Amino acid sequence: MAHSPESTAMDERTLADAIGRNRASRERFQGLEYARLRDTVAGYRRGSLVLPDGSVIPGYPSIGRVQSLGAGLRRHYSGAFWVEEKIDGFNVRIFRWQGRTYAATRGGYICAFSTDRLPDLLDSAILDDEPDLVLCAEIAGPENPYLEGAPPGVAEDVAAFVFDMMRTGRTGFLAQGEKMARLRDHGLPSAPIFGRFLPADLDALQALVLRLDAEGSEGVVLKGEQPGEGRAKYVTGRSNVADIELCGDQLLDLPPEYFTNRLLRLGLFVNEHAQAGDADLERRLGRALINGVTAAVDRSRTIGRVGRRFRCRFRQRRNAEAFMAHIKATGGQRVRIDPEMPRREGAFWVLEFERILERMTGTLANALSGASQYD
Amino acid sequence: MAHSPESTAMDERTLADAIGRNRASRERFQGLEYARLRDTVAGYRRGSLVLPDGSVIPGYPSIGRVQSLGAGLRRHYSGAFWVEEKIDGFNVRIFRWQGRTYAATRGGYICAFSTDRLPDLLDSAILDDEPDLVLCAEIAGPENPYLEGAPPGVAEDVAAFVFDMMRTGRTGFLAQGEKMARLRDHGLPSAPIFGRFLPADLDALQALVLRLDAEGSEGVVLKGEQPGEGRAKYVTGRSNVADIELCGDQLLDLPPEYFTNRLLRLGLFVNEHAQAGDADLERRLGRALINGVTAAVDRSRTIGRVGRRFRCRFRQRRNAEAFMAHIKATGGQRVRIDPEMPRREGAFWVLEFERILERMTGTLANALSGASQYD
Repeated sequence: MAHSPESTAMDERTLADAIGRNRASRERFQGLEYARLRDTVAGYRRGSLVLPDGSVIPGYPSIGRVQSLGAGLRRHYSGAFWVEEKIDGFNVRIFRWQGRTYAATRGGYICAFSTDRLPDLLDSAILDDEPDLVLCAEIAGPENPYLEGAPPGVAEDVAAFVFDMMRTGRTGFLAQGEKMARLRDHGLPSAPIFGRFLPADLDALQALVLRLDAEGSEGVVLKGEQPGEGRAKYVTGRSNVADIELCGDQLLDLPPEYFTNRLLRLGLFVNEHAQAGDADLERRLGRALINGVTAAVDRSRTIGRVGRRFRCRFRQRRNAEAFMAHIKATGGQRVRIDPEMPRREGAFWVLEFERILERMTGTLANALSGASQYD
Repeated sequence: MAHSPESTAMDERTLADAIGRNRASRERFQGLEYARLRDTVAGYRRGSLVLPDGSVIPGYPSIGRVQSLGAGLRRHYSGAFWVEEKIDGFNVRIFRWQGRTYAATRGGYICAFSTDRLPDLLDSAILDDEPDLVLCAEIAGPENPYLEGAPPGVAEDVAAFVFDMMRTGRTGFLAQGEKMARLRDHGLPSAPIFGRFLPADLDALQALVLRLDAEGSEGVVLKGEQPGEGRAKYVTGRSNVADIELCGDQLLDLPPEYFTNRLLRLGLFVNEHAQAGDADLERRLGRALINGVTAAVDRSRTIGRVGRRFRCRFRQRRNAEAFMAHIKATGGQRVRIDPEMPRREGAFWVLEFERILERMTGTLANALSGASQYD
């Protein structure tokens, strides 16, 4: 693998020491043995991957969330920033190793699903020219194995949206202009880029956010151009309602802050954007919460358990099997996979499985049995 | 104080030992020194009071909640049970000691507010005839110092609703017939008693619950007549929405389960009573959540803090002052009382104070400053 001169590899001793202290773990994906960082090691953050020659695919950093758009702009940006759409999917880093292209999850696992589907999602020829490039993309759509819901515009299967580029062994991202040139030159699918804004463009940005809110988009990511002015994300009010709609049946299985945080963000959005009294929004939120629970109650009454079904497709059977092994190993008893999976459908191998919501299953069974609860 | 032969006093040594182990604590209300149990001691539950002669005002037991009315009836009752209205207020036990009548909170503190107002709430002459009687009552109404909201029918100040009777030093309650005779003979205000039901009367009970749901009542308490068949409570769907309406501005200051538990109960109620798709209910729930947060955001923007105002009235200034000392001691910095309190209004001393919602205050100030949050 070619490296640019500034890149830093991780020496074997550092890695072995990190593994010994449980800050990294050895993983295997088919023929490839790699390590993933479970914590910061030698300046590389959690989620970084260490390849056999010590080269490092850097972890993707957390992006801070602003909950007030106007105040957030004033606080974080003195100069220009780029505004891109925040896509509601899962984050992967796509990289080349010994001629094969892989996709890794945020946590640093090579993802059998995303890796399998890469040829359908984008043309990775750019990695022939620049093999140390790492493409950061969101994979989103109804047929993904991690999360329910899909952004508007992805009606079936999944799609990829590249939004950042990094280099092996180096921290930081390619500058916006370098990234945009590569997206364009290689025809890569990208998250919509709405343009370059100045702090004084608050009105235009608010109008954009309200349009995204109405369209069902998750929100925006702001990327500062000035040195030291970084990234911030800001989500629409309705994206909080959409999250609650999708997860109302998981009321007890998600941390309760999942719901209270979204309700807080929704209230802040409604307040900032003068949406108070919007009857449609109110009804949609109430319905999301009530229907989520009643759907779970119905499943508890009829089949005795509450779960969520996932479906995704693979090009290669061995990748489907690698994915199944991964979720069995990490999801424990909570995952149910029918024995005939993966099932051939046309050119694909389809995998359907169910993640059991254990607390909803147990609590509803208890409630429907008439048992008393002391609270 | 007269004792019936079966009553059991607590000897000094048992009490001193419990205090040493922090299972009880000494308290003082004006001239009266008493102890309250912080945990079970000698068979008396948490919240019991021990008077100077060792006689014990028993703690009020928790009542189990059923979340499915039909299944709950089948599971808990083989024979008749009484159905009473559950009043949404705070629970006190009213007792006589050396000629004075006191009211104690669930936790075992003598409540300066309730004790002060007893002459306005009920005629305690029954305690002249039976001084070892303990009246268990809910005190409810808009002007109470503990909780917001009021049951339908209490438009101002507070009212008392007796729903159980106990005897000093004895466990268990008076039988329903004995209680009802005393309520009637002494004209005591009581929680509405809807009658005696059998498990086969499920339809009638469901109709009653739906009427209470529409009227804004909190729900019902069932009290079994058969030996070993105890009590159960069941709340209406809309009472969960009402709780959320009242507490939406406390989204981060209450345990998040406060909200998720109520949403779960609402969903179970909607499912059992076929209210799915009720647009009014959906909108009311959504509005409750959105308005609670936006009201808090408005207060954060305008006065820089989020709090809840309480107002209550006292007959005697010294009781108002005792109550103020109590909330200062137990509420710490979270309580703000204006220096001119209590304030004379007609025949009463009025106390107004504010309980600060610290997490909402801090989180909203941070969000409105534009700060980033990492989640």
